[in-house]
Parts: sequence; C-alpha cells; structure tokens
Amino acid sequence: MKAKCKGENYLGNKDAQVLIYDTTLRDGAQGEGISFSLDDKLKIAQKLDYLGVAYIEGGWPGSNPKDLEFFKRIREYELHHARIAAFSSTRKAGMRVSKDSNIKALLEAGVQTATIVGKTWDFHVVRALETTLEENLNMIRDSILFLKEKGLELIFDAEHFFDGYCHNPDYALQVLGTAAEAGADWIVLCDTNGGMMPWQVADAVQEVRRSIHVPLGIHAHNDSGCAVSNSLMAVYSGCEQVQGTMNSYGERCGNADLCSVIPNLELKMNCLCLPPDHLQRLTEVSHYVAEIANMPSPNNQPFVGYGAFAHKGGIHVSALLKDSGTYEHINPEKVGNHRRVLVSELSGLSNLLYKAKELNLDINSYDAETRRVMKEIKELENEGFQFEGADASLELLLRKAFGQHADFFQLNNLKIIIEKQEDNHSTAEAVIKVTVGEQTFHTAAEGEGPVNALDNSLRKALTEVYPEVADMHLADYKVRVLNGKEGTAAKVRVLIDSADPYSKWSTVGVSENIIEASWQALVDSINYLLFKRKISGEDSEN
Amino acid sequence: MKAKCKGENYLGNKDAQVLIYDTTLRDGAQGEGISFSLDDKLKIAQKLDYLGVAYIEGGWPGSNPKDLEFFKRIREYELHHARIAAFSSTRKAGMRVSKDSNIKALLEAGVQTATIVGKTWDFHVVRALETTLEENLNMIRDSILFLKEKGLELIFDAEHFFDGYCHNPDYALQVLGTAAEAGADWIVLCDTNGGMMPWQVADAVQEVRRSIHVPLGIHAHNDSGCAVSNSLMAVYSGCEQVQGTMNSYGERCGNADLCSVIPNLELKMNCLCLPPDHLQRLTEVSHYVAEIANMPSPNNQPFVGYGAFAHKGGIHVSALLKDSGTYEHINPEKVGNHRRVLVSELSGLSNLLYKAKELNLDINSYDAETRRVMKEIKELENEGFQFEGADASLELLLRKAFGQHADFFQLNNLKIIIEKQEDNHSTAEAVIKVTVGEQTFHTAAEGEGPVNALDNSLRKALTEVYPEVADMHLADYKVRVLNGKEGTAAKVRVLIDSADPYSKWSTVGVSENIIEASWQALVDSINYLLFKRKISGEDSEN
Repeated sequence: MKAKCKGENYLGNKDAQVLIYDTTLRDGAQGEGISFSLDDKLKIAQKLDYLGVAYIEGGWPGSNPKDLEFFKRIREYELHHARIAAFSSTRKAGMRVSKDSNIKALLEAGVQTATIVGKTWDFHVVRALETTLEENLNMIRDSILFLKEKGLELIFDAEHFFDGYCHNPDYALQVLGTAAEAGADWIVLCDTNGGMMPWQVADAVQEVRRSIHVPLGIHAHNDSGCAVSNSLMAVYSGCEQVQGTMNSYGERCGNADLCSVIPNLELKMNCLCLPPDHLQRLTEVSHYVAEIANMPSPNNQPFVGYGAFAHKGGIHVSALLKDSGTYEHINPEKVGNHRRVLVSELSGLSNLLYKAKELNLDINSYDAETRRVMKEIKELENEGFQFEGADASLELLLRKAFGQHADFFQLNNLKIIIEKQEDNHSTAEAVIKVTVGEQTFHTAAEGEGPVNALDNSLRKALTEVYPEVADMHLADYKVRVLNGKEGTAAKVRVLIDSADPYSKWSTVGVSENIIEASWQALVDSINYLLFKRKISGEDSEN
Repeated sequence: MKAKCKGENYLGNKDAQVLIYDTTLRDGAQGEGISFSLDDKLKIAQKLDYLGVAYIEGGWPGSNPKDLEFFKRIREYELHHARIAAFSSTRKAGMRVSKDSNIKALLEAGVQTATIVGKTWDFHVVRALETTLEENLNMIRDSILFLKEKGLELIFDAEHFFDGYCHNPDYALQVLGTAAEAGADWIVLCDTNGGMMPWQVADAVQEVRRSIHVPLGIHAHNDSGCAVSNSLMAVYSGCEQVQGTMNSYGERCGNADLCSVIPNLELKMNCLCLPPDHLQRLTEVSHYVAEIANMPSPNNQPFVGYGAFAHKGGIHVSALLKDSGTYEHINPEKVGNHRRVLVSELSGLSNLLYKAKELNLDINSYDAETRRVMKEIKELENEGFQFEGADASLELLLRKAFGQHADFFQLNNLKIIIEKQEDNHSTAEAVIKVTVGEQTFHTAAEGEGPVNALDNSLRKALTEVYPEVADMHLADYKVRVLNGKEGTAAKVRVLIDSADPYSKWSTVGVSENIIEASWQALVDSINYLLFKRKISGEDSEN
C-alpha cells in the first residue's frame, strides 16, 4: 500500500492561495473581557500587517465613534500586506440605502473594502429583523449595488448561512444568488451560532460551489469546539478565504483561532496564506495581541502556546532525545515557538548571544560568565520576569554582568502611606531617602496612588543631582497578574515604557507586592536613562 | 429542496451507543501544571461516575506506586456507571510477558479492563523502541494473549496509528490485525502527536473498518486544534468509543475535550453516551474537575465555559429577547450551563433589561428609574468600569437602585503602610476601622503587598460578626491599566473573582489608586456574599 500523506495538497493544486481575513478588532472585540482602546486597535492592526494577513477588519463604523476614528487614524500608517476592511449590516428594512446611517458611516470610513452582513436564515429574517423574506433580498441587493457603484471591493457575509441552509436551503441559496448577482466580490459562509459539525460544513460548501461562481469564504464560531476544523474543511471543500481572530477571541466561545488555522493551512494543506517566511512570526504576534488585550495566553493553545511543545512524560522525553519527530507534529520553529524541556536553553542562549553582540559585549557561548548570566536570566524568567517586553532591563542586566554598569543611586529606605476616610477617595504619600555618591536626599511627595506617589518622590529626590530625569516621562504602565488564583497575594509583573525626546525604552519588575514590582521597573527605567545620557555625553566629548 | 438537518442520525442507526473512555487521571495528568494526589484521583473518579462515563482509566500501575494505590482504594467505592481501566505498555522487547513488570503491576491492580498501548508506526519501533518490526508484533500478540487468558477485557491503544498509517500503511494495518487476532476487544486508533486533519482521520477509519472487525475507538490529541472534530469524524466514520479528558487536560495541547465531545455526540449526532438526563451534569463536573486540578476554567470553553452562552453585542441581545434560538446553537440548560447577558459599552438598553428581568426587578424600558440606572452605568463605564466581567457588582448596583440592597458594613477609615529598606523586599501593613450596626471593629494585618494586607485586615474585622466571610476566597485577581499614557498616575481597573463552596461571582473597582480600586471590588465581593446568604437564609426560613 502506498504511503498516504506525503506532501499532498488537499486543494488539488500546488500552492493554492487562501486569503486570511482577520476580524480581531471587530468580532474579537465582542469577546468577554475584551475592550480595545483606539490606540490598542492601531497597534494591533500594525502587528497584523507585520504578520501578513490579507485583510484587517477594523470595526463597524456605524456602531460607535471609536471605530470610525480608527479608520481615519489608520490611514496615517503605511501597511505592507493588509487591506483595511470596514463592516456594516445591509440597509435597514424599508429605508433607502443612501439614507442608511450604517452605510453612510461605512463610506465615511474611507476604505476600499466593505464587508456587508446580511441575513440568510429565514427564521432570522422573520423573528429578529421582523421583515419579509422578499424585503431582506432587496436590502442585500440594494446595499451591494450601492457600494459597488462607489467602487468598493465587496465582501458579503452570509450570516447564519449553515443554519439557514439546514432549515430552508432554497432561501439560503437564493440569498447567496442575490448577493452574487448584485456584484459581491466574495461570499462568506458564516456559522454564526458556531454549532455546525465538520461534515455539515463540507457538504454545504460543496453544494454552494455548484451554483455560486463567486469566490467563497468561511466564518466559523467555536460553540461546538469545531471552529478550526470547520474552517479547514471549508477550504478543503473549496473556500478561498478564512475569517477568524487572533487567539480565538470573540463572542461566547470565540471565532476560529487564526493561530491554528494559518499553520494548518500552510503546513498541513500546502496552502499559501502569509508572505514567505512570515509564519515564524505567528507566536510573537499571538502573544503581542494577548498582551494588548490583557488576556492570558492559554498554555496549551495549539501551535503558539507556551506549552504547545512542552514535554512532560518520561517516555516522550527520552524518545525526543533520539528524534524530535517522535512526539511533535511539526517543528515548533516553523511557527516561531520552541520546544521546552530539551533545547529551550539553547534557543535562549542564541537569543542572548545576539543581544550581547548588539551591545558590543565580549561574550561567547562557551564562557563561564555567559552561562552564569544565562542561568540568572532563566531564574528570573521562572519568577515571572519577561525580558522580551523589557529590553532596557535586559540590557542593564547584561551590562552589569560584564562590569559595564553600576546603579546611579541607592535606596536607603522608603515608606508609603495610603489613607482613606469613609467614602472619600484615598490619598497616597511617599517618603523616600536615596544616596547618590556622598549625598543623601530625603523627600516626600503625594500622588494619585501609591505608585504615582513613589514615582513623584523619587524624581524629586533625583532631579537635583540628575536634572536630565526631568526630560523623561513614563509613556505606559502595565500590570499583569501572574497567578490570579492566589487572589490578592498574587504575583504581579509591572512593565513600564519610558520616553525622552530621543527614544523609548521598557523595563520590568516582578513581585507579590505591586509597589515593589513598580519600584524595580522604575529604578531600571531611570538608571537606563542616566546610562544612555552618560554614554552619549562621553561620545560627544571624544 | 428538502431541509438538511432535521434529526438525522449520522451513524445511520437510531440511538447508536458511543462509549466514553475518560483518561483524565492518566493522560490528563501529563498536562503541564497538573498533579493529582491520590485523594484527588478518588474524588475525580467518583465525579466521573456521577457524570456516567463508561470507562475511567485510573492510571498506569507499572509507572508509579500512587497509581497502583488508586486501584486498590477505588474498590472501596461503589460505582454506578463506570468500569475502571488500568493502562500499560506491551511487554518489553526480548522479555517474557509473565516477567514484565508493567504487565505484572497491571494484574496487581485487580481491574477487569486492561488498556495496552503498542507501537503502530514503524519509525517509532525502530527509533524509539530500537527493536525490529517483527518483535513489536510479538510484543503486542503476547501481551494481549496473556491478559485475555487472565479473563480481562482488553482495549488495544494503537499509538501513533494515524502517523503510522500515513507513512507505512501496510505495517500499521498489520499491527491492528495482530491485535485483533490475539483477541483484543477494542482497537483504539491514536493520533498521539495530535497533528491530523479531520478528513485524514475519516479516511483512515473507513479504511480500517474494511479489514478489522473488532469495535474501534479514537484517541485524539489537540496539537492541530482539531481533537474534538477528529473524534467526531472518527465516530461519524465508524468508531464506537471515544477516549479523551475532562477540559482537554493532557500533554502539550491536551487531549480531546470530553466536555465538547459528549454534548456534540448526544445533541448533534443523536448518539447515546451518558445515562438519560445526565448530560445536564456536564458543566458541574467540568468545573469540579478544574477546581480539583487547580486549573482555571477557560471562560470561552465550548458548552461548559462560564461565557459559553454570554452575549455582548446589542443586536444579538435584542434578537435573543425575541427568541433564544437566534444566537444559540443549543439550549444551555441541556448541558447544565446558563445564558448570561453582558452589559458593556457595545451593548444597549436591551442587555440591561434582560439582566434586570433575570433579577426579577420591576423595570421597563420606558421607566424613568431605568433610564437613570442606565445613565449611571454608562457614566461608570466611561470612567472605566466594566460590568460584563463583574456580574455581582452590576447586580448590587441594580438592587441598590431599586431599594433592594444596603451595604452590610461601613468603612470609618483605613491606612496602609508600605516600607522598604535598601535591598530588602517591602513589607505591607493595613489598619482598618469598620462599623457594623452599632459595633466598631479596629484591626490590623500584614500581607504580601498592600492589597493583600487590606484584604486580610478587612476579613479579620468582619469575620467576628459575619463568620460566613471565612467561607469565601478570592479565586482570581486581575489588574488592567486603562490609560497607560498617564504613567504611574494611570487609572486602573481591578476585577476580583470570588468563590464559596456553592458559587462564583465577580466584582470590579476603578481608580487612579490601585488600593482604592481593589477596595471597591473587595467591598462589593463581600457585600454580594452576605446578600446571597441573607436571601438564602430567608428562603429556608419560609
């Protein structure tokens, strides 16, 4: 019997192209606990472009002003791979399309791609929209014709297509036919309630392909736990676009996780989704979006989870030592992840060597000092430090290890007092004593909270001897609870982004005590500024 | 065209039986962060029997004494539905089966069902076992013959079956044939590396059924994100047993989540897995196992997640008010879960009305009081409050607005002192004075940080008059910086999840001062507990 799985392309043509349509910023934002600021959305859009998806759905301009603002602001950025799409429903029942507020807002968004959702399930037309089946077809036709006349690329999202197809296939296909005739460039079949089985999706897509000659897409939700498979089955059956979100964010059980869909398409189905070699950015982008969303990254998330290639069973590990293919379905590096237990320290070392080279530190992999620093970094990471988001802290750590840096000030002691009377808001005051060389500074300051009071007090103490501290400001402050189960005794990681007129840098601190963690990050931040100024001062004197 | 999905049974026979084989206690225990005590295992086994699975794999008696002890102890319990199975590899290469320590330990376990895993992929035989393809067949044959002679039911787990079938189908089928001839009662096809696509599983199962006439099972891992679908596809293609774990626990990305497999089989495929009406125990059992495992229950876990039926989009909610089938694939009560409506900035008045209806508050959309509460909620949301993750805070707010609730205690004052000396870690101490009725409590406590000290101190003050406060604990603590640009003066939102033995609830606080925000969430949490206890006390008196 012939081997069954060597490099077949399940689409039957080599290097088939599948377009990835990311809706993290619209459908993903419907997820519980997710609330993106405008700034968050701009950051995520850039990161998705860096990953190389084909479409980024920025929001629903008709639904809220923040989304509309996003479309205006995103034009300031140069995107290299992605088109920006704006979402809207069809015109409302009994209204002229040119007067519809959603459609008007869509035009105002100034995008080249419009995604219009329309009802495909007769039950929804009658029960939710409370209109007639005929008027629903008119709403779809009018909206598409109008937007096509304006020169937009048009994607039609057939809401509840699969449920509609189950219950009234004639009407569901009539809706698709109407969208196709009106000029939709894409028809996307949505499993809005997320309850479909993989073979139902496959059967329906095959059936649709027979009568509809517009390129098809799939939009799957995960209520049955099958969103990834349903998306893959749809491509296997003829869809050429997949809509989904990063990390499966979205209403209820979320949307199809693009972090699983993309590598399965590229590695298992020989489809092209991203620009060449961009797949290895996937883990980084997944974690970046999770950080911005302030959502935990599930340890066991396929492909990109921190534990996706972590091996615990003794038999597995000893087999892996012989051959990594024994218990891994893909090489983790293909998605920018890494194996743990076995070679994670090696990959860590190479990252460290790269960083040291950048800093012109005389370091090599066989050196005892390198191994000591490496060990220290691993220990800190085990405690919850994360240096990938805190370059400046890592640089200080390396420079200290190689004798290139000493702290610019020492803490003698600090005391923070927070008081609250009945219903009044709290007050916070910090008293601090620091030493710089021979001099001691003892100051006090109030603040909006304990960390702010501490920050104010430390700056007050230092600006006398280091006036450059007044040049810097804290650009961002993030707190992440690492082990929430411990309740209020949980460990927290504080990340501080700082900036002066010339540059930005990030530092990190970890402790069960948020004040302690903030202190660590604050001290690193000021030390880094002073170090940079000292170096550039020496440079300009030479 | 005929409707496509009305009550078909995808197995072609009505009420097909599919046996559920739970391996949470063996394969699940390989998951990162999971470590079951003997007591944990006994508790979970009883709960799985309460759910009604057909098999509970208790462990690998040859691998560690704790597992062997489990098999002895579990005999003390009367199980109503489940058979206990013990796991082992085949005999080792070049050894007599009666002398093999794993096989001997298996017999010692005293079970009626043995599950034997054998290599099915030639690559593994040669690379990992380092023996010949012929000897591997002998190992399988000898082990099965021996255990069948002892009168055991025998399940053969064909490790890496799908990879083996891909690369060397002849040998993989020869392995299955050997197991069948030797008398295996079940042959279970394993996707050990978890990388298979759904159609690969379907094709292979159909092929195997042609030549193997022993009942088949499926054992899928989730490395490609398809474990649930792959299990369902296998049943669709002829398997009659599904192996998996509760909540998808297991090595790397975990095993097939039985919490998705079971309801899909019962509700979507018309298969019988559990005793009648036991499906509604699923959510309870899932959360119970998560508590014992000390793992967070993912909010968006299909079927059983706290947010699996949570609705945020205003359009969804207004449609749900008309008919719950509009945006739900099943009735949540079928799996013992319930619908939630989230009140967020994306939602409108309809979400609030829905929530109020749930609480039996006399509210309607035209009422001035409703509009006032709505306005207050919107204002709080503008300040950064987020009620979608804080049901209990929202409930208290609504009940207060409708005169149904007053706080159980009042703060007089509080003071928190944080001190740090040079390089020593900080200390935190909280002094608090609260009034309950006529009584005043003045206490102090230390903590891991200021919030923990505050929590400790408040509980200390309250437990004297409200001993039920000792029943609750903080299950999770989250901090989100809302406007990081303000640096350390940024506003933070604190979310606290609390639990007592009966339920979970979430509360929120927002302030520039993290202590203030934590205080607000903490006060709501305790008030909510006391309110619930008071209500249930009044109910039981009536």
